[in-house]
Amino acid sequence: MSALPTDSLETPRFCGIPTFMRLPQADTLDGLDAAVIGIPSDSGAPFRTGARFGPNAVRQMSIMLRPINPYRGGLDVFERIRVADVGDTPVVPGYEVRSLERIEASVSALVEAGIVPFGIGGDHSVTLAELRAVAKRHGPVALIQFDSHTDTWDKYFAGERYSAGTPFRRGVEENIIDPAHSIQIGMRGSLFQPSDVSQSLDLGFDVVTTDELFEMGFDVLASRIAERVAGRPAFITFDMDFVDPASAPGVQTPESGGASARETLDLVRRLHGIDLVGCDVVEINPQYDGPGQITALLGATVLAEFLALLADR
Amino acid sequence: MSALPTDSLETPRFCGIPTFMRLPQADTLDGLDAAVIGIPSDSGAPFRTGARFGPNAVRQMSIMLRPINPYRGGLDVFERIRVADVGDTPVVPGYEVRSLERIEASVSALVEAGIVPFGIGGDHSVTLAELRAVAKRHGPVALIQFDSHTDTWDKYFAGERYSAGTPFRRGVEENIIDPAHSIQIGMRGSLFQPSDVSQSLDLGFDVVTTDELFEMGFDVLASRIAERVAGRPAFITFDMDFVDPASAPGVQTPESGGASARETLDLVRRLHGIDLVGCDVVEINPQYDGPGQITALLGATVLAEFLALLADR
Amino acid sequence: MSALPTDSLETPRFCGIPTFMRLPQADTLDGLDAAVIGIPSDSGAPFRTGARFGPNAVRQMSIMLRPINPYRGGLDVFERIRVADVGDTPVVPGYEVRSLERIEASVSALVEAGIVPFGIGGDHSVTLAELRAVAKRHGPVALIQFDSHTDTWDKYFAGERYSAGTPFRRGVEENIIDPAHSIQIGMRGSLFQPSDVSQSLDLGFDVVTTDELFEMGFDVLASRIAERVAGRPAFITFDMDFVDPASAPGVQTPESGGASARETLDLVRRLHGIDLVGCDVVEINPQYDGPGQITALLGATVLAEFLALLADR
Amino acid sequence: MSALPTDSLETPRFCGIPTFMRLPQADTLDGLDAAVIGIPSDSGAPFRTGARFGPNAVRQMSIMLRPINPYRGGLDVFERIRVADVGDTPVVPGYEVRSLERIEASVSALVEAGIVPFGIGGDHSVTLAELRAVAKRHGPVALIQFDSHTDTWDKYFAGERYSAGTPFRRGVEENIIDPAHSIQIGMRGSLFQPSDVSQSLDLGFDVVTTDELFEMGFDVLASRIAERVAGRPAFITFDMDFVDPASAPGVQTPESGGASARETLDLVRRLHGIDLVGCDVVEINPQYDGPGQITALLGATVLAEFLALLADR
Amino acid sequence: MSALPTDSLETPRFCGIPTFMRLPQADTLDGLDAAVIGIPSDSGAPFRTGARFGPNAVRQMSIMLRPINPYRGGLDVFERIRVADVGDTPVVPGYEVRSLERIEASVSALVEAGIVPFGIGGDHSVTLAELRAVAKRHGPVALIQFDSHTDTWDKYFAGERYSAGTPFRRGVEENIIDPAHSIQIGMRGSLFQPSDVSQSLDLGFDVVTTDELFEMGFDVLASRIAERVAGRPAFITFDMDFVDPASAPGVQTPESGGASARETLDLVRRLHGIDLVGCDVVEINPQYDGPGQITALLGATVLAEFLALLADR
Amino acid sequence: MSALPTDSLETPRFCGIPTFMRLPQADTLDGLDAAVIGIPSDSGAPFRTGARFGPNAVRQMSIMLRPINPYRGGLDVFERIRVADVGDTPVVPGYEVRSLERIEASVSALVEAGIVPFGIGGDHSVTLAELRAVAKRHGPVALIQFDSHTDTWDKYFAGERYSAGTPFRRGVEENIIDPAHSIQIGMRGSLFQPSDVSQSLDLGFDVVTTDELFEMGFDVLASRIAERVAGRPAFITFDMDFVDPASAPGVQTPESGGASARETLDLVRRLHGIDLVGCDVVEINPQYDGPGQITALLGATVLAEFLALLADR
Repeated sequence: MSALPTDSLETPRFCGIPTFMRLPQADTLDGLDAAVIGIPSDSGAPFRTGARFGPNAVRQMSIMLRPINPYRGGLDVFERIRVADVGDTPVVPGYEVRSLERIEASVSALVEAGIVPFGIGGDHSVTLAELRAVAKRHGPVALIQFDSHTDTWDKYFAGERYSAGTPFRRGVEENIIDPAHSIQIGMRGSLFQPSDVSQSLDLGFDVVTTDELFEMGFDVLASRIAERVAGRPAFITFDMDFVDPASAPGVQTPESGGASARETLDLVRRLHGIDLVGCDVVEINPQYDGPGQITALLGATVLAEFLALLADR
Repeated sequence: MSALPTDSLETPRFCGIPTFMRLPQADTLDGLDAAVIGIPSDSGAPFRTGARFGPNAVRQMSIMLRPINPYRGGLDVFERIRVADVGDTPVVPGYEVRSLERIEASVSALVEAGIVPFGIGGDHSVTLAELRAVAKRHGPVALIQFDSHTDTWDKYFAGERYSAGTPFRRGVEENIIDPAHSIQIGMRGSLFQPSDVSQSLDLGFDVVTTDELFEMGFDVLASRIAERVAGRPAFITFDMDFVDPASAPGVQTPESGGASARETLDLVRRLHGIDLVGCDVVEINPQYDGPGQITALLGATVLAEFLALLADR
Repeated sequence: MSALPTDSLETPRFCGIPTFMRLPQADTLDGLDAAVIGIPSDSGAPFRTGARFGPNAVRQMSIMLRPINPYRGGLDVFERIRVADVGDTPVVPGYEVRSLERIEASVSALVEAGIVPFGIGGDHSVTLAELRAVAKRHGPVALIQFDSHTDTWDKYFAGERYSAGTPFRRGVEENIIDPAHSIQIGMRGSLFQPSDVSQSLDLGFDVVTTDELFEMGFDVLASRIAERVAGRPAFITFDMDFVDPASAPGVQTPESGGASARETLDLVRRLHGIDLVGCDVVEINPQYDGPGQITALLGATVLAEFLALLADR
Repeated sequence: MSALPTDSLETPRFCGIPTFMRLPQADTLDGLDAAVIGIPSDSGAPFRTGARFGPNAVRQMSIMLRPINPYRGGLDVFERIRVADVGDTPVVPGYEVRSLERIEASVSALVEAGIVPFGIGGDHSVTLAELRAVAKRHGPVALIQFDSHTDTWDKYFAGERYSAGTPFRRGVEENIIDPAHSIQIGMRGSLFQPSDVSQSLDLGFDVVTTDELFEMGFDVLASRIAERVAGRPAFITFDMDFVDPASAPGVQTPESGGASARETLDLVRRLHGIDLVGCDVVEINPQYDGPGQITALLGATVLAEFLALLADR
Repeated sequence: MSALPTDSLETPRFCGIPTFMRLPQADTLDGLDAAVIGIPSDSGAPFRTGARFGPNAVRQMSIMLRPINPYRGGLDVFERIRVADVGDTPVVPGYEVRSLERIEASVSALVEAGIVPFGIGGDHSVTLAELRAVAKRHGPVALIQFDSHTDTWDKYFAGERYSAGTPFRRGVEENIIDPAHSIQIGMRGSLFQPSDVSQSLDLGFDVVTTDELFEMGFDVLASRIAERVAGRPAFITFDMDFVDPASAPGVQTPESGGASARETLDLVRRLHGIDLVGCDVVEINPQYDGPGQITALLGATVLAEFLALLADR
Repeated sequence: MSALPTDSLETPRFCGIPTFMRLPQADTLDGLDAAVIGIPSDSGAPFRTGARFGPNAVRQMSIMLRPINPYRGGLDVFERIRVADVGDTPVVPGYEVRSLERIEASVSALVEAGIVPFGIGGDHSVTLAELRAVAKRHGPVALIQFDSHTDTWDKYFAGERYSAGTPFRRGVEENIIDPAHSIQIGMRGSLFQPSDVSQSLDLGFDVVTTDELFEMGFDVLASRIAERVAGRPAFITFDMDFVDPASAPGVQTPESGGASARETLDLVRRLHGIDLVGCDVVEINPQYDGPGQITALLGATVLAEFLALLADR
């Protein structure tokens, strides 16, 4: 099996069943440095459902992407690291808790093999399952969360503890997130309670709102992130609603007033000093994305930037 | 509170927040004969999710409908029966079992008040909750099911017992359906196992495939239904995938080759001899319905025909 | 100026600014037998608005059509009659009465020149203006109306007399329709009042419901139409909601349960014995039609059949 | 009746018939400080029609919004002011002048009860009717208009005086706008005549183009607005085409090159020193908005910011 | 490698990268009886282009299909024949002649290995390449063509000989089609020239128009097909525009007035007595198909019926 | 024939068959300074096809535009220069090389008559044909290319030399571009090879990436362009994928992270010192543009700015 993507100058992009970036679909985990894995669960979604179709939507738009990353010195990503698309985790739609168990098992198989998982959600609750898998090997991780919401609420709908709105409170409680080295970036919009943001501070997270990130500038923020994680094993989770709905209409809970695609990529490309042990891009819902599928394209591009971040060690 | 729909010759249809057929939204259940109730749960959906938005989609298209039904002798439905839109049941997205409990509680409140519930789903698993509520008052009901699938499978996804594919096996097991007086109409398409249809026969249902219903004709079928239910309290459940995808594209699990909208209405308008104690229209998903929202319109029209069936006693 | 459509075997259909059937856009009315004229008014629309974009939507799909009609003996339409696309009438959006005046003036210019107008609506109120123009030359016309609604209501919204729901009552009152030789075909669906259909009978129209037209068969109906019009100057008005929403989702007031496209064309192709002095296809709204634009295609096909009917004299 | 929105942590957002921000739908006006009122008229629209469906589209997306506004000190809006959704004004589609009369009557009922109206259009001509209602109580108001066009043209289509392009010339003529304390913000794009902008200056308005607002910065502009209105009773009208089509595709007359959603909210959140006696958000057309409905979401968010501005007195 | 589809009762349909019917994606051709192969070429399309995305659209909807075919005696297709999805042929977009060469090479590799190719187009010109491959082994084949157009024109656009409108004239000229045992079914609509249908008769084909097929009935037609092919090696080509646009809006050249999905499947399921050496479903264009993707679903269902026809030997 | 656009204050924009900016459709080339010409070819498209429908999509949205350009001193464009819409070039879909020949012939007819061509693509390969036509009169031109890709690759798909990815290498080889006075602006995103950008430098072009253009600012860039072209005859080609997908989703090969519509227009309006001998806007694909058609609107606006640039000599 080749370790390189199909060459889009030889074979048109639309030929073939789409895998992420036209990478080989793995038969084996042997020798992989990183694996792209779809996590098609939306049982945690309190509003628009359909992120179960997110992984394949991202794959379909990812065929636009090419292997060289000019933003990290012309890095040829797949010369540096060996990557495959390993397909999807199983899930149990309508059964949030069981879905998280299945996701954790699939991701654990990667982590145990020393492979860095690159997840494609799925609603944001899937990140809790990924963190469980990663923490088994690396201990509590530094979390770098791009999101318009903190997702640190306690309970939803008369008491349910697992939802797209609660994973990072659960993660602290389960001691799989190290909040003292974690940071949440992009919060904005109206709040349920005055404590919606302060609850994250109370849990120990650093929090940067969308207004603050534009005030401080992206270089300052990138340094603040690097300082916060302080070289510890880090997991990056990217909720597409961090981005403004103009650039990412296909999400579960859109929040007007976020960063544009250009600003988002500019920020992501400045990330440095991160010991990446896992990451994901979540909350992509193709049914709300319009015919251009620009949310899926941007999500694929962000994930490809995370691959470059890993390769650029 | 008026008991009549808003007059669309006086106030344009698009004025006002849409309730079913522009009926009053109930503050009280007093004096109602029937109540339209949204059941926005899609936690049972094994494929396309989003039927949580079905009830409001049906309401929005139902404003096209007018109160007189010429197919039952120029019946003025709302002179005969007092009907209101009572809003939606609560649900717990991602928690199928708890959602069914909440739905059952809401529908039970109607049934206990002597009101016939007219449900708008939601995925087909919600019918199990409705049947539980109805059977508490009426005992095991005669089920008249329009559907392209039997939905009598046993388990899904490594053992889960509650899903849009299992409600009518559960209903027989729970003794809330009387299969000897029940009938399933419209089965078609490819099968998981050779037993997909025979399993319903084994449970005691009568089954009429789509091919058979066209062979026998609609008058014969209407009589067969009346004979089957034999005057017992009956519940009609209408899965929109009974209809061909050309007329009902906005469903969870479309199955090519069903009845057209005209055939469907022709059949429904011939129903007679039914002691209706409850009914629903389920599996309407507006995200897959296209800008014309023809699935929602047809679903609303079918539900209005069931109102006329009740009024035509 | 050529009198023939652009040849789609020489120049691809998508080349050029689309006129109806790629006909020449007229600089002059000299020598024309018939003229296709857009009537982009939707000020009469009580529900979904946007039929102002109908004429160009129909033009864009009409480029699929070819000049030979095999259903009338392989008739080469444009060898028999000289036809041009004369563009659109002006209208005054938001001013229904003034819009009708402008439309009447434009259509009158055609009628006075001895040209048969082929209108593309626009909402159904535009037909009143066309009838005024035609009746000035021909006297009260025999009306052949395909529609799911009678459009013979009296007043809308606290007294307005001009609307898509009233043109044919107005036409009788204004003595431009001869109801004794007119027929309305396709009525169906729920009613505002028990009199919704009988009001047309009271005005003197013959009425055939959708159910009745399928019972009698298309040949019987075609003969009934010919007998009804009895050789008098006739105007055919085709409201796209005659057709089922599966085949015509892009309309103002969709009504489930109509004829399919195949049935519609089969019926239209059987029309005979009609002295056509004008016709239109109305209520096409591309915003509700989906990416396939099948309503516009069917509307264009129906209008092309009317051209063949005229050519087949 | 509760005065608080439904709690979206208890009951999922998609449960229930959507009112603005899930506020109670009012049975009475007693005790209200502000009322959200839909104004579903598009008879004034010279281009894309369909804003009649704007109010319900905004309601449907407004269920994303939460009650606490962090941009005005963590203000709990509904603790400060009592607000309800009072449904829609009646209108007469196709009859612009009569529609304005009906709208004025409905809004007057609110104003006379001392309630600040928060309108959801509808095309921009509806603002004239609102201003007539407001001015009856408050005299000529200071108008703060966000828009890409001045809407101070004189006549349209051979002389009609009432249209989405003329309300603010009419308002000055009718002495219900005080131009000396009014300001128009956001003008851009190509012009019909060299006087398109200067005509507003001639009428006495202050005018800030899109280019100028970015040059001066949002703090300077917010102060300029406060100085211009000088404490007088003020009405804010927000035409969604102020915003760039990337963030607001669902409008009547899109104009490339406007502010993004983030810039728009940043500006709106800086408004201060305004004695708000009424406001609206207009020109939202869901048919042109795509499946993500981002225009409706942004419109809802802007209106919620105006509620916070009122509550922040 | 398993030879069976993924079990959708164990693993939800949306999990995994979609292959046709969730079949294994082949690493080897060894032991296969049939192979599904995508042919993503639309360089032959004279009107709507985009069928290059057809194969993956069909795969995505084919995950709805199940392995048992009840229309051929409860046949378990994949117990009878070993089938895999072998991915796509390469193509050269914009270079029709070279694309046909590449397609022929890929299909030839299957045919030479004794595997029956099941192609998914692509525009209809790809069938010429498939026929070239098949005829190398089997000689001139009996062609069974479902289509609304004959596709036996001679040249397009000033002389080009290869196009979606010409493959079956070319096939006769190249002696890879045996017209005396071939039949074209479904022709309808307006014509370029009076000879559009007779040109096929002149080439030696049998032709059945849409009108004729409904007159004769499906059983008669199925027998006429069996008699026509007379046991010779046969290739079935199914152009989706055979079907009415209501059931198949996502095609290149829609033609109003075809068979419904139910009628289409009813006809296809009656086919018998055919020695199938190859087949395809072509002209599926997902961009014109609407969110329900009903054209892709029907195309997948038709192809699955052809698999059952092969298995039912 | 009038030389002025239809007045949208007299006749509503939606009346009439749309030409670019409602300009007259030319019967003759006499006296024209500039001509808008559609080039509906997408045979060069390696990814999303459908730009053949771009010219009419741009025309339909261009009816929003008005004749006065306030960004160049209130310039009345059509008082300064006489412009018409001359329709489309013929093309041969599926035959890239022949299509380029036909396009060249049509554009040459304009250039030979001393008319500046304003092309609407079509995929980017059409620019090569335009350049061939222009260079016959003006010699090798200074090219000003806005694009996210250099389009200077050598060969595609096993050796084809003509494609949307190769026109500017071909143009240098054919000596119709003068690279020493040419500049490419907007490159960004991942690369096939490390040389993707440097290959343009090797050919002699100046290259400004998206990152660089934001660093240098638009005034500096406008001056750099003017200095680069140095008064030589210049051709501006504008690939819509220069713009971010949020503002231009309807393109062939979207690339996340480009300029917004406001930034794009701000830049284009600063262009000066250019002896414009031709220009185009390419790669607009309405099927991917969503119902708002914002890509087509922006493309039309950019082309109108180029008309103002020509008129502002």
